[in-house]
Amino acid sequence: MRLRLMEATVECLVELGWAGTSTTVVSQRAGVSRGAQLHHFPSKQDLVVAAVGHLSERRREDMAKSAADLPEHGRTRAVLDVLAAQFVSPVFFAALELWVAARTDAELRKAVGPLERRVGRETHAFAVELLGIDEAKGDNRALVQATLDLVRGLGLAASLSDDSKRRSVVLDAWATVLDDQLETS
Amino acid sequence: MRLRLMEATVECLVELGWAGTSTTVVSQRAGVSRGAQLHHFPSKQDLVVAAVGHLSERRREDMAKSAADLPEHGRTRAVLDVLAAQFVSPVFFAALELWVAARTDAELRKAVGPLERRVGRETHAFAVELLGIDEAKGDNRALVQATLDLVRGLGLAASLSDDSKRRSVVLDAWATVLDDQLETS
Repeated sequence: MRLRLMEATVECLVELGWAGTSTTVVSQRAGVSRGAQLHHFPSKQDLVVAAVGHLSERRREDMAKSAADLPEHGRTRAVLDVLAAQFVSPVFFAALELWVAARTDAELRKAVGPLERRVGRETHAFAVELLGIDEAKGDNRALVQATLDLVRGLGLAASLSDDSKRRSVVLDAWATVLDDQLETS
Repeated sequence: MRLRLMEATVECLVELGWAGTSTTVVSQRAGVSRGAQLHHFPSKQDLVVAAVGHLSERRREDMAKSAADLPEHGRTRAVLDVLAAQFVSPVFFAALELWVAARTDAELRKAVGPLERRVGRETHAFAVELLGIDEAKGDNRALVQATLDLVRGLGLAASLSDDSKRRSVVLDAWATVLDDQLETS
């Protein structure tokens, strides 16, 4: 039931945005009584933070799966696709609703800040692993951070319109840069 | 009076977010009667789209001014600061409120789409000019796009917490990359 509520919350955030997501709408969509919903998640904030946290876990599992299929040849470009897919996605759009709402809501920011930092650290570690680099070498660490800022920016661009052609060209160029600039062991 | 209304709108978006911005709150803050406000901007959408459009113009003027002071030495890094300043700013946070709201509001998206494309084109042309490159050469065009996606991502990261130290390291590394990879005439 917790799971159903969390998944309905993400659907609502993606389709209706922050303002359109209410505990009432979520309970209805999940087919869960108001009482049960309030028992599991007393407020909209509890529900939304739990839902986005839950999704980040699922996202991590998805990333781990896609990592298994990376090609030898053109690996960097394939890694960029795996990373970009995490940001050009409904999950990111749901998180974006939460982040933007948290910017002007101090209570919500207290809950979202730690979640965002944790997801950021995990995604960074994952990128380092996929790229197969030692991040202590040269500018590697900063280049991985730049890569994640890039895909975050691409995710935001994709939230308004289909941007896939442009994105593909940008990621091609970025892969060339990384292959050239990352220091490998 | 139009100007006062538009500037009050941006202040409201930055401080209160999309949901907290209403035509009533804006009129009060601008010290303009409801009647006058409705005369200039019949709806919240008209007001907000005009306000963000107006700000993009001011942003362009700001960029043009900062371009005059670029140093010879370390120019690329200085250009990145000028570009990043456009995204790590209240103006960007106001635009972010509008973009995210537009994602789930088809009417608003119709108005925001063209605005966003125009600002995107202008910022791109400006970046090419500041970097002093021919974008037809090599990967130059894609590298400029990547740079703008990167600073957009940095702007989003800055919306939740002060991220200036990390940002500075990322931009240092990216300046080195651009100096290495951009094809100059």
